Amino acid sequence: MNNPVLSVCIIGHGRVGKLFEALLKSMKGVRVLVKHKHELMYPVADIFMICVQDQWVSKVVKELTFHEQERVFSAVHCSGMLPLGVLASLAKVNRERNRQRGKINKKKKESENKYIAVLHPLAPISSHTVSVEGILFDAMGDPDLLLIFERWCLEWGARYLRVNEHQKKVLHIAAVMSCNYLTTLYGMVGDFLESEQFTNVEAKQIVNNTMGRTLEQLYELSVEQAMTGPIIRGDIDAIHEHLAILKHDRHRLALYKNLGNSTLDMISEFQYRPSEDRIVLMRELFSS
Amino acid sequence: MNNPVLSVCIIGHGRVGKLFEALLKSMKGVRVLVKHKHELMYPVADIFMICVQDQWVSKVVKELTFHEQERVFSAVHCSGMLPLGVLASLAKVNRERNRQRGKINKKKKESENKYIAVLHPLAPISSHTVSVEGILFDAMGDPDLLLIFERWCLEWGARYLRVNEHQKKVLHIAAVMSCNYLTTLYGMVGDFLESEQFTNVEAKQIVNNTMGRTLEQLYELSVEQAMTGPIIRGDIDAIHEHLAILKHDRHRLALYKNLGNSTLDMISEFQYRPSEDRIVLMRELFSS
Repeated sequence: MNNPVLSVCIIGHGRVGKLFEALLKSMKGVRVLVKHKHELMYPVADIFMICVQDQWVSKVVKELTFHEQERVFSAVHCSGMLPLGVLASLAKVNRERNRQRGKINKKKKESENKYIAVLHPLAPISSHTVSVEGILFDAMGDPDLLLIFERWCLEWGARYLRVNEHQKKVLHIAAVMSCNYLTTLYGMVGDFLESEQFTNVEAKQIVNNTMGRTLEQLYELSVEQAMTGPIIRGDIDAIHEHLAILKHDRHRLALYKNLGNSTLDMISEFQYRPSEDRIVLMRELFSS
Repeated sequence: MNNPVLSVCIIGHGRVGKLFEALLKSMKGVRVLVKHKHELMYPVADIFMICVQDQWVSKVVKELTFHEQERVFSAVHCSGMLPLGVLASLAKVNRERNRQRGKINKKKKESENKYIAVLHPLAPISSHTVSVEGILFDAMGDPDLLLIFERWCLEWGARYLRVNEHQKKVLHIAAVMSCNYLTTLYGMVGDFLESEQFTNVEAKQIVNNTMGRTLEQLYELSVEQAMTGPIIRGDIDAIHEHLAILKHDRHRLALYKNLGNSTLDMISEFQYRPSEDRIVLMRELFSS
């Protein structure tokens, strides 16, 4: 057996579980099983990929500690939020089993992370997601598992990044800000256009196009080069006018002012920025 | 002469001027001239496109009121911010000249917007921009000019939208929020990753990829369907942890909290949202 088949059991059949199922099914040398919620027993597998929602992970971990099978198994979770440590009890169980079976030298102490890992796609996954090309997967844990994940990512056209516990948290914050807050901005601007007699389709096209174009530019240019608009120009009149139009729209006014302040925070490091007195004036407008 | 050549003089050779020059040069039946800053005299043209920065538009308008040429001319500005009215004196001059030359029936009163218009690309334009495919151009003014612009947009693969004065302002606010505030969010998240030992290239790839994926989803799904992350899940622990990590990073902490509050504002309309007590708790965290 030069190429033993690796059996992977996916636990949880939501958006992430379904994506991993599709990705792994297309690979040679991998057999994919799915453990659905209503099934009581876990099948025999080499790797259990826990794709349930964060709050159910510890329940699944508990069930897996009672799961008996001939060979030791590995457990992986796919949460951006949870630490590797939530799988610690499974690592322990499998280390002990391995030792009991005399499969490893008793003097050789297995690493605490043996048999456990995290593999997390750093992107919003919807039921429409079929490709992970270009998506970054952050991973940590058992080096043997990480080698497997790195090969998977290569085959999927995804990017692989090994992280430590702190970097994982940092990436999660970055993802929340990039994905969720972009969604908030998108929704707020879209609703504003709709409230001003643009159709839903027009609003969507306008926001998607302006944001898409901006992202394209940001890939080619630095943030400083890409920044345009009234704030970087120090155009107090434009800001006054915008605030006047938004004045009865409490939520959008707050967003406009707060992001105005954050823009001032950011451009304070720029080489070319408005004069100090204009910055003070804008700061007053955004903080009023 | 079935297809008389339309001569267009571009005034101002910055990013927008260069873009229009490139777009118009590729078209049949259009002759493009550029009036550079150091040139004192304006050439003879059918349409003058004013592409200078906003603060210089009135100076150009003044110069054009003294510009003498055989035929009447039209003037267009390309500013998102300025109203059509900044060109009013040029409309007046040309109407009067037309009347003096007896070219129109004295009893027929020409519309106030005759000979003037606005044509504004609703997207960030950089020196790298070569295509305007999919970009929306908002336009207002002389219906004869608007017909020409609509044909241009069609040929460029751009979208054309006729707006009124108020809608133009609304679009400008939307563009500022879509483009500039997206840039701010992008820069803030990128700097955060760099401050946490990710390289500049990694940071750029991570932010561009997560934002790009999110935008793709937002095109296919509604904002409510696309929203993920700790806030919509009501995951107080995650938010606590994020705030703890950001606590010494004043600018990013403010952004995280403010956009958290805006996200709460937005999801208050959603059908599926966290329980009221969780929303109150999150509101407290973001407002602390």
